[in-house]
Amino acid sequence: MRTQEMLRVHPGKTLLDKEIVESSIQELIEAQQACTVCADSCLSEEEVKMLTRCIQLNLDCADVINTTVRLLSRPATPSLELVKQQLMASITALEACATECQKHSKMEHCKICMEICRSTKESTQRMLSSIKK
Amino acid sequence: MRTQEMLRVHPGKTLLDKEIVESSIQELIEAQQACTVCADSCLSEEEVKMLTRCIQLNLDCADVINTTVRLLSRPATPSLELVKQQLMASITALEACATECQKHSKMEHCKICMEICRSTKESTQRMLSSIKK
Amino acid sequence: MRTQEMLRVHPGKTLLDKEIVESSIQELIEAQQACTVCADSCLSEEEVKMLTRCIQLNLDCADVINTTVRLLSRPATPSLELVKQQLMASITALEACATECQKHSKMEHCKICMEICRSTKESTQRMLSSIKK
Amino acid sequence: MRTQEMLRVHPGKTLLDKEIVESSIQELIEAQQACTVCADSCLSEEEVKMLTRCIQLNLDCADVINTTVRLLSRPATPSLELVKQQLMASITALEACATECQKHSKMEHCKICMEICRSTKESTQRMLSSIKK
Repeated sequence: MRTQEMLRVHPGKTLLDKEIVESSIQELIEAQQACTVCADSCLSEEEVKMLTRCIQLNLDCADVINTTVRLLSRPATPSLELVKQQLMASITALEACATECQKHSKMEHCKICMEICRSTKESTQRMLSSIKK
Repeated sequence: MRTQEMLRVHPGKTLLDKEIVESSIQELIEAQQACTVCADSCLSEEEVKMLTRCIQLNLDCADVINTTVRLLSRPATPSLELVKQQLMASITALEACATECQKHSKMEHCKICMEICRSTKESTQRMLSSIKK
Repeated sequence: MRTQEMLRVHPGKTLLDKEIVESSIQELIEAQQACTVCADSCLSEEEVKMLTRCIQLNLDCADVINTTVRLLSRPATPSLELVKQQLMASITALEACATECQKHSKMEHCKICMEICRSTKESTQRMLSSIKK
Repeated sequence: MRTQEMLRVHPGKTLLDKEIVESSIQELIEAQQACTVCADSCLSEEEVKMLTRCIQLNLDCADVINTTVRLLSRPATPSLELVKQQLMASITALEACATECQKHSKMEHCKICMEICRSTKESTQRMLSSIKK
């Protein structure tokens, strides 16, 4: 993505590691998209009744991550405490989503969404650790 | 707001206290609006250069709260842990915004935004306590 | 709402009528909340299968209006053309939502959401007309 | 992106061309990120005073596109009229942003943002044309 280039030419100082921010943003965007499409896919399933919790968690997760991406995309942001808490909320959202999607992994959209949420959770934990140091 | 009526007729069970959720949503929406208008007001000030940190925190706070309102507006949501963490992120965002706006409280928009963020922070803490119980 | 006060003290010039903007924002926020709660209410209904189109339109409408509120909350914004188009998208979204909710108006949440969407559509049309003049 | 895979396995019928939707979403996400980072970059510039209009348009454009991506990510969405209007608003936002960024293209972030907005505007027009047919 060319937007990685944009983070590199950002004129401001930042306490965040730009490379880790870049890859974290990419993964979070992918998870946000996965959750949004998974919710819509669940709504198209015949057995939507048993997928309502999955839809709710998908929607919550997509919203939480949407905000996290925006915070990370403002690398000159001065409140590291806020970034950390938003990353923690994202990790919880991704775990909740992955756990629920796993129950429905016979459906391809839930299976892929679970895999993306799980790998994004790991990269988000790395992002969080890089700030704590 | 008639949307309070909607929360009352929501057919789902919820572990959240609907009355506290209602008032919390109202306050959070007010703070979100205050932060968005404050950021735009700061951009219109002659001395915008000294307000850039205020603008950044306003934008972050508005985004974080936007997501929090959405989570609370889905009272059938099953992840209390996620709601709690998003509320904690909101409290941090509101405090950061209030503290920064206080430095510029000669400007009316920063003064009002500070007051709204501070009172919303308190009601958000009450919302959080009501879940922890 | 105290946020109306904030629009009044906004230091920038604006081509928009602040009073109309204020009331338009209030109505749009109410509709956005109605749609978000209605979607979650539909997911809690036994007969969710026949409500999937309603849920999808609720989600789309809430997202479209969320953005419209943000644009109107930046009254110093220089692109009137953009504001007009976003208002037109909102009117279409509100009408689509109201029409679908009407089909399910035996359910209280759909009935209230329909009423709010319909009255907000009218106020949004007034907002749009005030710019066109 | 693996999210393209998700669109492919979406179980619902759609009137949209999935391949065009996929590439359109990718470009729109890139533009949204460019605008968000460009706004934050502008805030870090010494001469922020002359960049306030650019910041405002960046913020508006990022919000409009954020919603457009969500609508396109629900391909089972039933209101083509709404999708079309949101695409038109996006094209206007992208053009406004590109035009303003061009004035400041000595700054790398504005130059890259201008290029991304311009190419995304073209792909969004193709997306719009594919629906009109």
